[in-house]
Amino acid sequence: MPLSFATERTPVSQSKPDPLVIFTPSGKRGHFPAGTPVLTAARKLGVDLDSVCGGRGKCSKCQVAPSYGEFSKHGVTVAKDALSPFNEVEARYDRIRGLISGRRLGCQATIQTDVVIDVPPESQVHKQVVRKRAEARDITLAPSIRRVLVEVEQPDMHEPTGDFERLQNALAQQWDIKGVTTTLPILSRLQKCLRKGEWSVTCTIHNAGISLPPRLIDIAQGFDETAFYGLAVDLGSTTIAGHLCNLETGEVVASAGLMNPQIRFGEDLMSRVSYGMMNEGGSGEMTAAVREGMAQLCRDVAKDAGIAPERIIDATIVCNPVMHHLFLGIDAYELGQAPFALATSDALNLSAHEVGLPLHENAALYMLPCIAGHVGADAAAVALSEAPEKSDDLVLIVDVGTNAEIILGNKNRVLACSSPTGPAFEGAQISAGQRAAPGAIERVEIDPITKEPRFKIIGSDLWSNEAGFEEAALATGVTGICGSGIIECVAEMRMAGIVDGPGLIGSAEQVGTDRCFADGRTNSYLLYDATHLGGDKITVTNRDIREIQMAKAALYSGARLLMDKFEVDTVDRIVLCGAFGAHISPKHAMILGMIPDCALDKVTSAGNAAGTGARIALLNTDARREIETTVRAIHKIETAIEPRFQEHFVNASNIPNAADSFPHLGAIVTLPNVNHNAGDGSDGGKRRRRRRG
Amino acid sequence: MPLSFATERTPVSQSKPDPLVIFTPSGKRGHFPAGTPVLTAARKLGVDLDSVCGGRGKCSKCQVAPSYGEFSKHGVTVAKDALSPFNEVEARYDRIRGLISGRRLGCQATIQTDVVIDVPPESQVHKQVVRKRAEARDITLAPSIRRVLVEVEQPDMHEPTGDFERLQNALAQQWDIKGVTTTLPILSRLQKCLRKGEWSVTCTIHNAGISLPPRLIDIAQGFDETAFYGLAVDLGSTTIAGHLCNLETGEVVASAGLMNPQIRFGEDLMSRVSYGMMNEGGSGEMTAAVREGMAQLCRDVAKDAGIAPERIIDATIVCNPVMHHLFLGIDAYELGQAPFALATSDALNLSAHEVGLPLHENAALYMLPCIAGHVGADAAAVALSEAPEKSDDLVLIVDVGTNAEIILGNKNRVLACSSPTGPAFEGAQISAGQRAAPGAIERVEIDPITKEPRFKIIGSDLWSNEAGFEEAALATGVTGICGSGIIECVAEMRMAGIVDGPGLIGSAEQVGTDRCFADGRTNSYLLYDATHLGGDKITVTNRDIREIQMAKAALYSGARLLMDKFEVDTVDRIVLCGAFGAHISPKHAMILGMIPDCALDKVTSAGNAAGTGARIALLNTDARREIETTVRAIHKIETAIEPRFQEHFVNASNIPNAADSFPHLGAIVTLPNVNHNAGDGSDGGKRRRRRRG
Repeated sequence: MPLSFATERTPVSQSKPDPLVIFTPSGKRGHFPAGTPVLTAARKLGVDLDSVCGGRGKCSKCQVAPSYGEFSKHGVTVAKDALSPFNEVEARYDRIRGLISGRRLGCQATIQTDVVIDVPPESQVHKQVVRKRAEARDITLAPSIRRVLVEVEQPDMHEPTGDFERLQNALAQQWDIKGVTTTLPILSRLQKCLRKGEWSVTCTIHNAGISLPPRLIDIAQGFDETAFYGLAVDLGSTTIAGHLCNLETGEVVASAGLMNPQIRFGEDLMSRVSYGMMNEGGSGEMTAAVREGMAQLCRDVAKDAGIAPERIIDATIVCNPVMHHLFLGIDAYELGQAPFALATSDALNLSAHEVGLPLHENAALYMLPCIAGHVGADAAAVALSEAPEKSDDLVLIVDVGTNAEIILGNKNRVLACSSPTGPAFEGAQISAGQRAAPGAIERVEIDPITKEPRFKIIGSDLWSNEAGFEEAALATGVTGICGSGIIECVAEMRMAGIVDGPGLIGSAEQVGTDRCFADGRTNSYLLYDATHLGGDKITVTNRDIREIQMAKAALYSGARLLMDKFEVDTVDRIVLCGAFGAHISPKHAMILGMIPDCALDKVTSAGNAAGTGARIALLNTDARREIETTVRAIHKIETAIEPRFQEHFVNASNIPNAADSFPHLGAIVTLPNVNHNAGDGSDGGKRRRRRRG
Repeated sequence: MPLSFATERTPVSQSKPDPLVIFTPSGKRGHFPAGTPVLTAARKLGVDLDSVCGGRGKCSKCQVAPSYGEFSKHGVTVAKDALSPFNEVEARYDRIRGLISGRRLGCQATIQTDVVIDVPPESQVHKQVVRKRAEARDITLAPSIRRVLVEVEQPDMHEPTGDFERLQNALAQQWDIKGVTTTLPILSRLQKCLRKGEWSVTCTIHNAGISLPPRLIDIAQGFDETAFYGLAVDLGSTTIAGHLCNLETGEVVASAGLMNPQIRFGEDLMSRVSYGMMNEGGSGEMTAAVREGMAQLCRDVAKDAGIAPERIIDATIVCNPVMHHLFLGIDAYELGQAPFALATSDALNLSAHEVGLPLHENAALYMLPCIAGHVGADAAAVALSEAPEKSDDLVLIVDVGTNAEIILGNKNRVLACSSPTGPAFEGAQISAGQRAAPGAIERVEIDPITKEPRFKIIGSDLWSNEAGFEEAALATGVTGICGSGIIECVAEMRMAGIVDGPGLIGSAEQVGTDRCFADGRTNSYLLYDATHLGGDKITVTNRDIREIQMAKAALYSGARLLMDKFEVDTVDRIVLCGAFGAHISPKHAMILGMIPDCALDKVTSAGNAAGTGARIALLNTDARREIETTVRAIHKIETAIEPRFQEHFVNASNIPNAADSFPHLGAIVTLPNVNHNAGDGSDGGKRRRRRRG
C-alpha cells in the first residue's frame, strides 16, 4: 500500500483553522487537517524524522515525544488529546518491543488539535555521532546506504514487466528513489525474496554520488532491520587498523588492527617500491600481500563484533600513495622517482570484491583522494578530521609516521607537504629500538644532577625506581625503547647535559657518570641493564641520537617550509596525529626541535586523525564531497624540489638552544650550555641524505 | 597538442568573402578562412568525417576526395589549387600505406578557394553496413565503442594530479568526451602506456547509454589501430550461434555455432525448468553449462577469425526468457508457471566477465530486453531486424523454434505472443525425425497418382529418383527426416490423398499403395527403405502426423489470436524467421495450415532474424534505444490465459481444405476430398494438452 499523504490544506472559507503542529528541536511548523499522521506532517515540513517502513507501523524509527501544556514561546496550549489515542499498532509494538513512556509512533499517531512534538535524537536520520574528544568536529550521520521497505505490485499477465522493473517503480513511487540499478546477485535472489516476503521487501540502496545512479545492493524479504555495518580502514605501511561502525547509529562496535603483511617486502615504502622494481611480479606479490592483510582485518573485526563479514556493506580506506597504488594493483614505480606521478589522484568508488575484500557481495568501497604523489589519502583524511580549512587560527597539523604528512592552514588557505622522516620515530633504526609493545620503554626521565634515569614500560604504571617495578617487569621483560621513549630519552639527555647541542654524547668524565662510556669513536649512554631479567643492556648510542636528529630535522624542515610559503614565523596551534602523535610528549618534542615553537597548551594530540577521517567519510557522504573539494583546493608543496627545504634541514639538525628558537619553551626548561665535541670521533659535521620511506 | 580550430569568420568589412566549402553527399556548406583544414571545416559543419588521431596525420580515417571544375548546381567553379598542395605528411602516408589517387587527408589539406569535397563512405563514422537481403533495413554503423588518440600533459610536481585525471582532461579538451570513468585493470596499465607512448595514447571509450558516464575500457600506447571486434550471439535452447563483427567496418569476419550444452538437462525449456525445480543446485549447474557453451563460442569464433578473444570488446545476446535467466544465473522457476514473471525484463548493460565470457578484460555485454515471460529478447531482436512498427502494411512475423514467437503489426500497433509449438518442427518427437544434418531428408514430393515419393537429402543436390543418388547418398546415408522435410512430407501426403483432413493415414486399400501399411491401430507410410545403405526404414507414422498437427495448430492459433486482437482476417505479408524458417517451403506450410492465408509471393524468409537483431544492436547503439522503446510499446498477449487460443487450437488441428480457408492457396493446389476414418483406430477426437517448451 503506497503512502497516503494528507490532503492539501482545507480552503480558507472554513471557520476554524487546521491544527498547528510545531516540531522541536527544528522549530519547523505548519497547519495540517485533523487526522494527519505525525510522520506525514514531518515529511511535508522536511523535518528530519526517520522511517524505514514508510509508515506501516513496523520499524518504530519514527518515534516522537509530544509535549503537553502551555507553550507561551510558541503561543500554543497543547491539550492532552492533541494526538489520537494510543492505537492497536502502538499497543502491540509496546507489548513486544517496549515503547519509552510518553513516546508515540509518528506514523500511527494523528494530529487532532494544536501540538508540539519533539523528535528525539535517535529518531533523526541525520543524528549526531558522539565523539570523545571535545574539540573534534561532530559527525552527522548520512551514510551512503539507505534502507527502505517497499511493497511491490504483483505480476500481471496482461501487463508483463519484470519483478525488478516493478520494484523500481515501487521505489520511485513510495520513496522517490528513481532509476535504481542493481547487480546480478540481487537479480538472482529477487524473485524468491519478493514471494517469501509476500511482495514486501526491505531494500538497501547505495548512493555513491552525483554522477552515478542509486544502486540496489541488498534485498531482504519483508521488513528486515538486521543491522548493516561499515568498515573504516587506516591502511598504514606498518599497521592496518579498522573501525567497524553500525551504519544506523554511527557507533563503533569493534576495532581491530594487524601488521601490514607487506612489511616482509621492506620496512619502509621506498624499499617496497624498490622490491617491485627489482623483482619480476614483485608488485603483484605486494598487492596480494596487502589484500590478504585487508581481508584478514575484515574477518577479525567482524569476529570481534560477533557478526558475519557479509553484514559489512560499505568501506572506506585511507592510506599513503604507495599503499594506495599497491592495494589497487597499480605498480608504485612512478612514486619512487620525480615527478612522483600518481596513476590516479581522485577519490574512487569501487566494489569491495574487486579488491578481494570478503564483505557483503555488493559492498561498496570508497578510497579517499590523494593530495599529491607524497601526500596521500591519509593526509586527506587528516584534513577531513581536523578541518584546517575551517579554522580561524593558523593550525599546523603533523601526522607522524614513516613519512610525516604536514598540513598548515586556516580558512584562507591550506598548504600540505610530506617529509621523509624515516622510521626512527617508530623505534626502527635505533639500536635498542622496538615497536610499541609490552616491555618497551615509553617514558623516560633523567635527573639533571645525578644523570640517573628512571622510566616506564608499556604494560606497567610504575616508574622503574618505584617498589615492585622489577616484579611487574618480569611478565614482559624490559625489551627496548619505542618511538615515544626514544624521543623523551634524547630530550632528557639534552636537558641533563648528557647530549650537547650538535648531538654528541659526552664521555664519563665530561658528563660525570659511568653510564656514559666510550663506544667506538663516540660515546653511548646506558639506560638500563636488563640482563638480570633475561634481556640485554639497553643503551643509547651516538648513532641513535643522529637518527633522531635526522628524523626531527626532516619533520621540522617540512613545517618550516610550509611556514615560509605561508609567510609566517609562528603558528597558533599544533595538532599531532597518528598513533605515535597520541603518545608523544609535546614538551619533549619541542625540546628536540621536532615542531616549531608554540605555547605548550596549544599543542594537542588528535589521536589517529587519519582513521577518524576514514570514519567520517564512512558515516557521511557529504563529507566525501567535502574532502574531494578540499583536496583540490589544498596547495601542495613538493619538498624534494624546494631548495629551502634542504637549507632548513641543515639548520635544524642541531638540538636547539631553547632560549634562542623556542621562546615558549624557554619559559619552561633551560638547556645546559655544553659542548662535547672533543675535535675527534664526531660526525657532527657530516650530512647524510635520507632516503624517502 | 590540442586541436586548434579555425578562428571565427572574418568581419564583413573585408572586401572578399571567405572561400565556400560544400561537402557531398551531405550537402552541408559554409565559408571558412583560407588555410582552414578540411577536417576542421567538416567538424564545424557537423559533417560525418571520421578521425581517430584528431588531425595529427596518423590515422588516415579523414580521407576526402575534392572535385574540380564547374558545379552549376552549387554555383561554384573549383580551381585546381582550391586545396593546399599535397604536403609532406600526405606524401609520407602515400609512400608507406598508399593513398587512392585523388584522395587527400582532411586534416592536412587546407582550403584555399571555393571547393566541393566528397566524403567517401569509408571515411564516414556512421557508414552503412551492407546487408545481403534486399528488403532488409540498412545498418548504420554507430557502435558503443569509440577510439580516439589523445595527447596527455606530463606530470608537474607543482601541480600534482594523477595521470588518469590528466587523461580525463585531455579527453574532455581534445574530444569533448567528459567525465570518463575507468576500471582497475586500466589504471594498473595506464602509467606504462603513457610513458611508452610518450604521452600519446589511443583510448577506447565505451558508451553504454544515457544514464551512465562514458567508460575508458582500453588504452594502447601511441597511435594504435589494431581492430576491435564485437560478438552478436543468438543463444537458443538448442544451438548457440555467434557472428563476430569488426566494429570499425561492421563486417562479419567469422561465424560459429555449437550445441547448447544445457541440452543434457532437457531437450525443451520446460524440462530444464523442471530440472532446476527437482534438483538441488540444478539451476546453478545449468547456468554453468550454458556459460561454458558461450565461452566456447567466444574461443571458437575468435579462432575462426584468427584473432585473440581479448580483441573482442563488446557483445550482444538475444535469447528466450528461460535462457536469459539461466545464463544470468537466475532460477527460471517462475517462468514455468503462471503468471510467468520475469526477474527482469529491461535491457541489461553488464560486463562480459561477470558472466564468465573470456573476452577483453573490460568487454561490455548488452542483453536485449524481454517482451514478456514467454516472449524473449529473441523476439525483441526479430522486431529490431524486421521493424514491424515501421511497416505500412500489416506484417505477421513468425520465428519458428521450439517455441514460436509471433509478432503482428504495422506502424499503428504491434502485438506479440509466444506459442508452444514443441520441438516437432525441429524433427524431434518424430519417429524418423532428426536435426538438419547431412543425410537428413529435407525436401519431399509425392506423385498424386502413383503415391510414390521422391526426396532430397542434405548434402546432395539430386532427387532420390535421379541417377547417381544412391552413390552420392553412400557418403552420408539416408538417416532420417529433418524439420522442413517432415513438413513437406506431411503436406505432400495430404495433397496425394494419403492423409485426410482430420490427419489419418489411409490403409493400402484406401490409398492404393503398398507404401501404406497397418501399424498398430493406425497406418504408416513408408518413405524410404535405407536398409541397403546400412540405415533403417524411414516411415511416417500417424503419430508423427499428429505431432505435426499439434505443432502447426499451436502456431496457427497464436497467429489467429493476434489477428483477432487486431480485428483482421488477413495479413498483408508473412515473414518466416529462424534457421528453420529459412528452409521451410511457404506453399507446404500453408497447405499444412501452419500460417494464415496470404499471397505466396508475400511469404518471405528473413533467415535468422533474431541473430540479425543481435548484430544490429551490436553495431548501432541507437538501435538499442530504439528496441527498448519498441518493446515497451509492443502489446503482449499471453496465450495461456486467452480462451480464444484454445478455441483456435481445436479448430486448427485438422489439415485444412485449402479452398475453404486459404483462398490464395486454392488457386495453386487442390486438396483431395478423402476421409480415412474407418470408425476405429483413430485418435482424431482426442485432444492432448501440450506442454510448453
